[in-house]
Amino acid sequence: MNNIMSKKLSTKPLRGMKDFYPPDLREINWIIDTIRDVADLYSYEEFESPSLEPIEIFAAKSSEELVNEQSFIVEKKKGEKLILIPELTPSLARIITAKRQELKKPIRWFSVPTCYRYERPQKGRRREFKQINMDILGENSLYGDLEIFSIIVDIFSEFGATSKQFQIYYNNRRFIDSVCELILQVPKEKIPLVYKILDKADKMENSEYEKYVLDNFQDEIIIQGIYKLKEANSLNDLLTQFEDISKEFYDSKGFKELTSFIQLLEEARISEYCTFSPGVVRGLDYYTGIVYEVFDTGKENIRSIFGGGRYDDLLSLFSDEKITGTGFGMGVLMFSLFLKTYDLIPKEIREPDYTDTIFIASINENVSEYVLKLARMIRAEDFPCIVDYRFSNLKNQLSKAHEIGVLIVLIIGPKEMEQNEVTIRNMNTEKQETIKNSSLIDKIYDIIDELETQN
Amino acid sequence: MNNIMSKKLSTKPLRGMKDFYPPDLREINWIIDTIRDVADLYSYEEFESPSLEPIEIFAAKSSEELVNEQSFIVEKKKGEKLILIPELTPSLARIITAKRQELKKPIRWFSVPTCYRYERPQKGRRREFKQINMDILGENSLYGDLEIFSIIVDIFSEFGATSKQFQIYYNNRRFIDSVCELILQVPKEKIPLVYKILDKADKMENSEYEKYVLDNFQDEIIIQGIYKLKEANSLNDLLTQFEDISKEFYDSKGFKELTSFIQLLEEARISEYCTFSPGVVRGLDYYTGIVYEVFDTGKENIRSIFGGGRYDDLLSLFSDEKITGTGFGMGVLMFSLFLKTYDLIPKEIREPDYTDTIFIASINENVSEYVLKLARMIRAEDFPCIVDYRFSNLKNQLSKAHEIGVLIVLIIGPKEMEQNEVTIRNMNTEKQETIKNSSLIDKIYDIIDELETQN
Repeated sequence: MNNIMSKKLSTKPLRGMKDFYPPDLREINWIIDTIRDVADLYSYEEFESPSLEPIEIFAAKSSEELVNEQSFIVEKKKGEKLILIPELTPSLARIITAKRQELKKPIRWFSVPTCYRYERPQKGRRREFKQINMDILGENSLYGDLEIFSIIVDIFSEFGATSKQFQIYYNNRRFIDSVCELILQVPKEKIPLVYKILDKADKMENSEYEKYVLDNFQDEIIIQGIYKLKEANSLNDLLTQFEDISKEFYDSKGFKELTSFIQLLEEARISEYCTFSPGVVRGLDYYTGIVYEVFDTGKENIRSIFGGGRYDDLLSLFSDEKITGTGFGMGVLMFSLFLKTYDLIPKEIREPDYTDTIFIASINENVSEYVLKLARMIRAEDFPCIVDYRFSNLKNQLSKAHEIGVLIVLIIGPKEMEQNEVTIRNMNTEKQETIKNSSLIDKIYDIIDELETQN
Repeated sequence: MNNIMSKKLSTKPLRGMKDFYPPDLREINWIIDTIRDVADLYSYEEFESPSLEPIEIFAAKSSEELVNEQSFIVEKKKGEKLILIPELTPSLARIITAKRQELKKPIRWFSVPTCYRYERPQKGRRREFKQINMDILGENSLYGDLEIFSIIVDIFSEFGATSKQFQIYYNNRRFIDSVCELILQVPKEKIPLVYKILDKADKMENSEYEKYVLDNFQDEIIIQGIYKLKEANSLNDLLTQFEDISKEFYDSKGFKELTSFIQLLEEARISEYCTFSPGVVRGLDYYTGIVYEVFDTGKENIRSIFGGGRYDDLLSLFSDEKITGTGFGMGVLMFSLFLKTYDLIPKEIREPDYTDTIFIASINENVSEYVLKLARMIRAEDFPCIVDYRFSNLKNQLSKAHEIGVLIVLIIGPKEMEQNEVTIRNMNTEKQETIKNSSLIDKIYDIIDELETQN
């Protein structure tokens, strides 16, 4: 039995959470920074809002499941519930509304929030995760959606992914509205049910799904319509399956918007990355227009990598003013799994970059003051510098330098100090020479050049 | 009375939290990135651990006040309490312990966690805040503390602050131990009380403080000793106030470590930034050696900007192995208030950088395909590009470009499209010319050069 004094706590992070050691953090930051570069090219500005929000702003607009079952809740005062944000969009709506007069439209914004969901952890899913959000607000036209699609394509392309490896499966909720109302004659109050069924389809077994449809609809035309929506993979493929489509349908906003958007994807030369997919509707309640899910086209990652869409009425919680928006939230973990599947993350990203780092080893502590002076000189020239403070056993210090992978080492002893000199060693060639410290910086540049031409 | 349908939610963030709009985020990121640059120069590697931890790892080592009164607690399962981290050090201890075998020592690490404390918000203090943590672990010698002091000095210097504007007020807990044991003869079990009294002094009125001391100690030598520790501002000043100091004291580890450290500060040429201050002990329970608080020397910011120290036994919660460490946690908000006091944050940091951003205005929507092509060309050359999707009313588009502050505008109409041309306008000189689109990129470089030489 353990003595109470020696009982130790676990060193593991909480279930579903992750410790990012430096190599892990370099990798995820490389991914995020590469995406930031794309955001820059479209002139999207970064913002940040708190991780805690009043639960009310999520309760009204996010999915019920997210808020009631999957949330981390903090209760500081009786009756006042705070939520660790499970997604960013309601916060975005709040902070846009707060400055809606002064913000110049269209608003092009992105953010990299940490989000929290109390779900069963699995591949690609943690309880604490980073998400990249990009949105354009106040751009009502389809060009807003098109810009977001271009950004998505550019992000994937920036990492070297091709249209054979990913596709944006898109739809338009207004088009589905038109199909429901004008082709399938779904009673208006039952249209939300069609969305719910389409959204759940991928998460169910076939037999379970069929039962779910039949439990909710009796009309054979509607039932078959739902199956067709789920299965079609082009507009033509879908429409030829329906008989007698009315002129009213072809004149509807839903149909026209969809066909215009298909046209725009051609104009922007990104249609090879996009597939019309009328079964895609997105689970969150606030979407109103173009919606999409991005998938790996291979077999390894069968869940959607991420998705997004247009929301026309999100600010309504905070204001009567309408600002429409469209955007996406991309989990960095799922995206990184996609990149790994296609070997698109260079291995060396995880390693520290010691190209221009100087390591100082010394023979004894009598030289410490001189060593500290050299370190100051080196850092003043913007070279990173590591000082080995053991001041004894040079051999150990050199093997340490080798072990961590630095390429340039200074060796300092009493002779160097007396003469204002340094012995500088190129760890690759194992050549070393003793020079005046006044020419140290030039020499460092020389060795770096030498090392770079060797690679 | 409000109709329930039109009752709107507040757009304010929660009390004590802040929305970082793009200008705010640019400012704070500029500060953090500047500090990251200093961390790089010392070869400190960044890591990240979760915002949620089991409460036990804080309960044992942080201050009681932090955990019991000022924490945000989440309870997901009955009896399992999670804490939103109020500081980083216990998490650091946990994740170091988890990989204590494989991590190469000394470990030089930094992190920029978001921390949470349920305190009364005031100037420089929010309930959600970013903190920069830098630590060196596995370096037992005073050179570890010295390196941290050098980093602090370099951080302040990097922003242009001088030793007239800030000071590191330092002490050594082992020195205070020696004073208590060998000069003041404080009973061993009452030494923690001396620390508590010294730590509370700055937060109390004089009379309240005196009462506090008298309530806890009766021995006049101890009472006077505590006052002397609080008031002394040099080692000499302190020691000359005591009579008959024993040889045992001068031989003690506490005294020797302190005098060696004072010597090292001279060697490293940073003593002008440091003041020995025996009243500084730090509130957190885990410190054992050198401790310090950094203050603005002026009158505007009277609270400590941040502090830190050496902890020799922090891993004990998780393991019997000992790894010592020393480091600090600096609240970014308090630091930024210091910088603002001395006007060390350039105003333009808050503005977007549009130096090389191209804005495309166009005469009508017939040119959209051509405009999208130009935007692709421009972004492919790594220039940010904003497309105005209004495609009508050129005048409005140009005034928009002017309003947001871009410097280079392309004007595209049917003539430009037909001839594969672009009209390019320098917004500063208001000169514009029409050129072949094949020479667009060269022209952009020319205009940027021109704009830069004007500035």
